[in-house]
Amino acid sequence: MEKENAIEKGLALIKRSKTCLIGTNGDNGFPNVKALLNYMNEGLNTIWFTTNTPSKKVKQVQKDGKACVYYYDENGFEGLMLVGTMEALQDPASRRKVWKDGYEMYYPKGVDDPDYTVLKFMTESFNIYSGFSNSTFEL
Amino acid sequence: MEKENAIEKGLALIKRSKTCLIGTNGDNGFPNVKALLNYMNEGLNTIWFTTNTPSKKVKQVQKDGKACVYYYDENGFEGLMLVGTMEALQDPASRRKVWKDGYEMYYPKGVDDPDYTVLKFMTESFNIYSGFSNSTFEL
Repeated sequence: MEKENAIEKGLALIKRSKTCLIGTNGDNGFPNVKALLNYMNEGLNTIWFTTNTPSKKVKQVQKDGKACVYYYDENGFEGLMLVGTMEALQDPASRRKVWKDGYEMYYPKGVDDPDYTVLKFMTESFNIYSGFSNSTFEL
Repeated sequence: MEKENAIEKGLALIKRSKTCLIGTNGDNGFPNVKALLNYMNEGLNTIWFTTNTPSKKVKQVQKDGKACVYYYDENGFEGLMLVGTMEALQDPASRRKVWKDGYEMYYPKGVDDPDYTVLKFMTESFNIYSGFSNSTFEL
């Protein structure tokens, strides 16, 4: 598969995904996987999530930012794995960029609630599986 | 949540899952995630998969067996992460244990096809997320 076509297929898969999975480096060298809502992406380059500040993911990425984000279609036999680094952010610009109306339900103190943390993932390479083709590209 | 109840909920989630995700340690310290068909489990203790011998997963678990297996229900907000070790096996007993009728479609040389590899995952601990409860247990 050519890179341009792979990016197009990957973006289409993200668009129709309700959830995605994040892979992080957990305790004692074991990888961890967790499902998150597919929240916000800028192309394949940058993926944004929100989480509670005390969550295990925040501690993990503060210790080791190497991570992956995975989208898949279990009926269409398609999968997209983005490999890169994840940061936990609380700066005002990131908070405001990702905030959505109604979030007060989760973070009662609003956009500056200390319990509100933004996860920013930056892709370095990606692998796409579609049909019988499996291709990896640098981004 | 009590351990007995967590095991029961976890087994029910596995039973209704068409696919699951495996987390492995990939190149250069990055975690990798991949979807696989939910194939065969013995309680929460041992999970079996099949794969092609040349697959990346086989090389990864031969190098570092630390892994996780993750099941989730994106509508029910439930998730089960099993953390443990994975082995790639080609011994006759494992091959025969996991073989199913019709597999000749994938492995034309049958149960002894060198392209057929069995992945055996053995759980050490598990985390279950259900409703607003998040609990981890040794198995």
